[in-house]
Amino acid sequence: MIIVTKPGIQEAELDHIRERVESLGLRTHVSRGEQRTIVGCIGDEERLQELPLLSMAGVEQVLPVLKPYKLAAREFSAGPTLVRVGGAEIGGSELAVIAGPCSVEGREMLRETAFAVQDAGARLLRGGAFKPRTSPYSFRGLGEQALELLAEVRRESGLPVVTEVMDTRQVDIVAQYADMLQIGARNMQNFALLSEVGRLHRPVLLKRGMSATVLDLLLAAEYIMAQGNMNVVLCERGIRTFETATRNTFDLAAIPVLKRETHLPVIADPSHAGGRRELVAPLAYAAVAAGADGLMVEVHPNPEQALSDGDQSLSLAEFESMMRVVGELAGVVGRRLPATAAVAA
Amino acid sequence: MIIVTKPGIQEAELDHIRERVESLGLRTHVSRGEQRTIVGCIGDEERLQELPLLSMAGVEQVLPVLKPYKLAAREFSAGPTLVRVGGAEIGGSELAVIAGPCSVEGREMLRETAFAVQDAGARLLRGGAFKPRTSPYSFRGLGEQALELLAEVRRESGLPVVTEVMDTRQVDIVAQYADMLQIGARNMQNFALLSEVGRLHRPVLLKRGMSATVLDLLLAAEYIMAQGNMNVVLCERGIRTFETATRNTFDLAAIPVLKRETHLPVIADPSHAGGRRELVAPLAYAAVAAGADGLMVEVHPNPEQALSDGDQSLSLAEFESMMRVVGELAGVVGRRLPATAAVAA
Amino acid sequence: MIIVTKPGIQEAELDHIRERVESLGLRTHVSRGEQRTIVGCIGDEERLQELPLLSMAGVEQVLPVLKPYKLAAREFSAGPTLVRVGGAEIGGSELAVIAGPCSVEGREMLRETAFAVQDAGARLLRGGAFKPRTSPYSFRGLGEQALELLAEVRRESGLPVVTEVMDTRQVDIVAQYADMLQIGARNMQNFALLSEVGRLHRPVLLKRGMSATVLDLLLAAEYIMAQGNMNVVLCERGIRTFETATRNTFDLAAIPVLKRETHLPVIADPSHAGGRRELVAPLAYAAVAAGADGLMVEVHPNPEQALSDGDQSLSLAEFESMMRVVGELAGVVGRRLPATAAVAA
Amino acid sequence: MIIVTKPGIQEAELDHIRERVESLGLRTHVSRGEQRTIVGCIGDEERLQELPLLSMAGVEQVLPVLKPYKLAAREFSAGPTLVRVGGAEIGGSELAVIAGPCSVEGREMLRETAFAVQDAGARLLRGGAFKPRTSPYSFRGLGEQALELLAEVRRESGLPVVTEVMDTRQVDIVAQYADMLQIGARNMQNFALLSEVGRLHRPVLLKRGMSATVLDLLLAAEYIMAQGNMNVVLCERGIRTFETATRNTFDLAAIPVLKRETHLPVIADPSHAGGRRELVAPLAYAAVAAGADGLMVEVHPNPEQALSDGDQSLSLAEFESMMRVVGELAGVVGRRLPATAAVAA
Repeated sequence: MIIVTKPGIQEAELDHIRERVESLGLRTHVSRGEQRTIVGCIGDEERLQELPLLSMAGVEQVLPVLKPYKLAAREFSAGPTLVRVGGAEIGGSELAVIAGPCSVEGREMLRETAFAVQDAGARLLRGGAFKPRTSPYSFRGLGEQALELLAEVRRESGLPVVTEVMDTRQVDIVAQYADMLQIGARNMQNFALLSEVGRLHRPVLLKRGMSATVLDLLLAAEYIMAQGNMNVVLCERGIRTFETATRNTFDLAAIPVLKRETHLPVIADPSHAGGRRELVAPLAYAAVAAGADGLMVEVHPNPEQALSDGDQSLSLAEFESMMRVVGELAGVVGRRLPATAAVAA
Repeated sequence: MIIVTKPGIQEAELDHIRERVESLGLRTHVSRGEQRTIVGCIGDEERLQELPLLSMAGVEQVLPVLKPYKLAAREFSAGPTLVRVGGAEIGGSELAVIAGPCSVEGREMLRETAFAVQDAGARLLRGGAFKPRTSPYSFRGLGEQALELLAEVRRESGLPVVTEVMDTRQVDIVAQYADMLQIGARNMQNFALLSEVGRLHRPVLLKRGMSATVLDLLLAAEYIMAQGNMNVVLCERGIRTFETATRNTFDLAAIPVLKRETHLPVIADPSHAGGRRELVAPLAYAAVAAGADGLMVEVHPNPEQALSDGDQSLSLAEFESMMRVVGELAGVVGRRLPATAAVAA
Repeated sequence: MIIVTKPGIQEAELDHIRERVESLGLRTHVSRGEQRTIVGCIGDEERLQELPLLSMAGVEQVLPVLKPYKLAAREFSAGPTLVRVGGAEIGGSELAVIAGPCSVEGREMLRETAFAVQDAGARLLRGGAFKPRTSPYSFRGLGEQALELLAEVRRESGLPVVTEVMDTRQVDIVAQYADMLQIGARNMQNFALLSEVGRLHRPVLLKRGMSATVLDLLLAAEYIMAQGNMNVVLCERGIRTFETATRNTFDLAAIPVLKRETHLPVIADPSHAGGRRELVAPLAYAAVAAGADGLMVEVHPNPEQALSDGDQSLSLAEFESMMRVVGELAGVVGRRLPATAAVAA
Repeated sequence: MIIVTKPGIQEAELDHIRERVESLGLRTHVSRGEQRTIVGCIGDEERLQELPLLSMAGVEQVLPVLKPYKLAAREFSAGPTLVRVGGAEIGGSELAVIAGPCSVEGREMLRETAFAVQDAGARLLRGGAFKPRTSPYSFRGLGEQALELLAEVRRESGLPVVTEVMDTRQVDIVAQYADMLQIGARNMQNFALLSEVGRLHRPVLLKRGMSATVLDLLLAAEYIMAQGNMNVVLCERGIRTFETATRNTFDLAAIPVLKRETHLPVIADPSHAGGRRELVAPLAYAAVAAGADGLMVEVHPNPEQALSDGDQSLSLAEFESMMRVVGELAGVVGRRLPATAAVAA
């Protein structure tokens, strides 16, 4: 932490600042420039976090030097983390594509979708059981019945299952059925929920909040990891900006930025980022070209009949067609789709 | 709902759109303009929400006509709602000021703060027991012990108590102690939590999320009200924008906008909006001048020693001095502070 | 400037960084912490601006210590700057209210507006001659004819005239007529135009750009001042955010922030900030309560017939009624409206 | 245009609204729903733009049906527009890569860069002569001397030249030297400048403003086209959001959105979007994969010595290496780099 003082700070004010910092066990180092005096604080920066430095007389700016996350930081791990979910692996040379309906609406639509996306190269099945909806009057999912259907289709297809958990009280029941627990964008800073999924050792798919910076996302991952669960996959899904031509603004650059900052895998959700069916493929292509470790895509056998997110769901044929291009682009940047898919394609 | 079609839409496409809409029990009304054909949908617009209209062939735009919230809408209520919390009232001619420490740190600091803010004109006491923190390594509050201290100080001072609830599992315990439950900005779209506080009939202070539009805030209130709890107070506390000179961007205009859109009371939190002590007073003055029904302010006997939010907490003397001006401004716009405070001032 | 290096930086890299900095005439000061080594750069920080420090091997972060503006900084001036425009003064104890139509549409409407706003307490007359319009097909003002009408009404009323200049080639002609030149939000970073109005010594009203930070606004003022023109008044008029309930998001906190950062006067434009007539008054009240030095308000004798910005223009009666409250609020925060207005009210 | 009225609107108010609309030569069509009455306006919607509909009694919402741009709209042109710049073509099957230094700093660096980027597959040379800089104390370019150097290197290399024009007074001189005039992000709504470059028939590269929506960008293009100049190329270069990990937020989705909305070519500037050298390649890959018609990239023989934007400039070797991958990705999505480059690669 570096403390920049105001011009004309008095010695007593400077002494007071140093005393407060040193009382927390850090050392200070004063450097007098032509216009500003600077106090460097050496030691455990975290202890300074609670100190209201800006409220002390004579302080102009406080500049943190260290990153506030540790377990999620690149340096923490010798290499990139591979997260294993059932038989699938996220973060390796094989692109991990998670696909399926926004909501599980019934057995048949789920089975049909699962086998089709698997044939096209997806390695994991998504499907909403508990749905967060902006309006209290919207369809909110089939709940536990959907979890049972997901487990059933997993048995048949072998596809590991990813589904969202929205409430600390649901964590246990969801974990009984799902291979990977998803934390949605609106719950990215639901700290109670983050801690709760951290206590399990089930892989977690953590979606970036609509107003979360890359730093906030890494701190949310840190919450989970601080409980001992290192199996966290980050997901860029668009942020909220002034642009209204798309549902959210897909922050493509977050993918390479995150790949540099953390050892955790990073995937992209082109369905929510664009919010319109015709944008899903170009956004997916971009994410793969920029180095994403995988994709999460909403697919429905009949998007026009979908009970939620029909506007942004791909049909089975559209998904299959997109995956052909995804596979080719992956090849250019040193990745590949699963072998079976390559054959299918 | 109005559906704008693409130029050159075919009759079969138009028919299909009308059939889908009519199959949900609405009537349609086609109007052919010079460049676009428009389909007006008459009836229960809500049923159309799930229909993926944009994904149908020939559809260019979908324009909602009705507001997606009902119970929270101005028209729902004959007049402004008064929310009673203990002996205090929010939404009436008396300005409701909620003040107290960010976190309850101990009995003495809480008592000292409570009596001082009461003397200065506050009618409710705030104090954090469970604290949402961006970093898992920050102080997260004293928990139930803090709730007990709040209840104790309420007995002594008569000030009703407002405190945050962050987890569906904590709702019952917090409701045992608190007069008003606060939903923090990060949980504004934690729909499970909203439903849970909706089931109680305890007043709720709902803070606007960092990336929530005014519409999102009203829909979050609707979630609570849809469970039967009409005692909701909305709180503007700043949104996230590109500006970094302040912690958040205080959306002052949201106050008059909300006062027109809803019958619910609207207060402002100048402490979180600015994030710096010297901004609290000007933001509070602005909120009162613009018609806010109250304020929520962080106050600490010794901000430099605060365990959280010290940078934005007012000292007791600063709060008292701010409240004198607040009282005078309130008078200009037809409001007043509690009588006892007027005497004290 | 403080340079934070990456963990494990090599001595040769550190030496190279220091050499580059010292080659520009600054001194360096190395401080080795537990996890990071820090290089403090002492001397003329401005020279470092062009140095691509982030692109040097071993550099992790670069933290500027000094502010990049000088003439606009609070410290540059012994006290607040008073900008004199004709007989009016902006930045003193009298609130400076600039009012008039969005566009000058004709002699009669301009005269009627001028006398009415003067009676209500305005000290300067605004009126657009050259109008920036988002669409090329919108009304773009009467041009020089409007300038003549403004000068004519100034002669009759004594009100100094403020009007926008949009093109470096118009600066001379506009300066022949206007007492104060306005730089609109869309031109806040039109650096050629800033330099051009800087060469004149005519007062400048500089409106904040829609995506400009407080820092950007101060740097734009610095451009003008660097040419020798110190008569700059800053104007908050809303920024662009995700919120669509208002035309822009009025950044109320920018007013007190700017008052601390600079000696220049700061006014607010509640008309553009809200974009709707019914928001003008509450935003104006808030700005005055928060310490603004003045207001800029669109007023039209018949808003429904206005050729531009009719939705956000006040009628003469609405303006008069707003100004009564403005005068009372000003009194609470130690300001006042002109004496004649007080009588009129 | 569709006008949604308030519940309980009176017949006289409705009549007044219809009269005003019809007085402008449009027809109205009233549709009474269960909760709202709707007035459809049929005819030239543009004429309604100036009408302050929202300020009329009884009006709740105004919903535009038609797009406010025409010449730029997809429907205006039978197919995609090809913009020819010297021997190069933007918008065809060959990817148009524009590369060169941020600022022209001298003859040698410019020649070296030009031949290197040409060998790697670039078809146009960029180089700043007049530079917009946020601070008045930064290097602002060599001016006309730079234009001469650009023309000289064009003669030697055959590469057409793109350079920025910032001032209406510079348009003629820049047009004497440059093959394509660039309008920078900060001038995207400098309407005087847009009109001026519209009067020439020289191709224009129009960069998206930092706070411009896709719609604003298309309206800015419309300004140029309304003067008769149809040779406009749009450039996505990042928008301003709350995220600070990158200089701007690259709005990747704007590329496919624009490709659907307009017949004009769309390119991307990965250098400004990311602001950091290591992000240029991933952003460029993403843009190509998502369907961009070209790229604009800052390249410098020695980025560490660059007088501006050194942090985000690629070295010659980095550019060459990036272009190999760009070429392969282009192949996957049906594009290619120039043949000579393919050989070189």
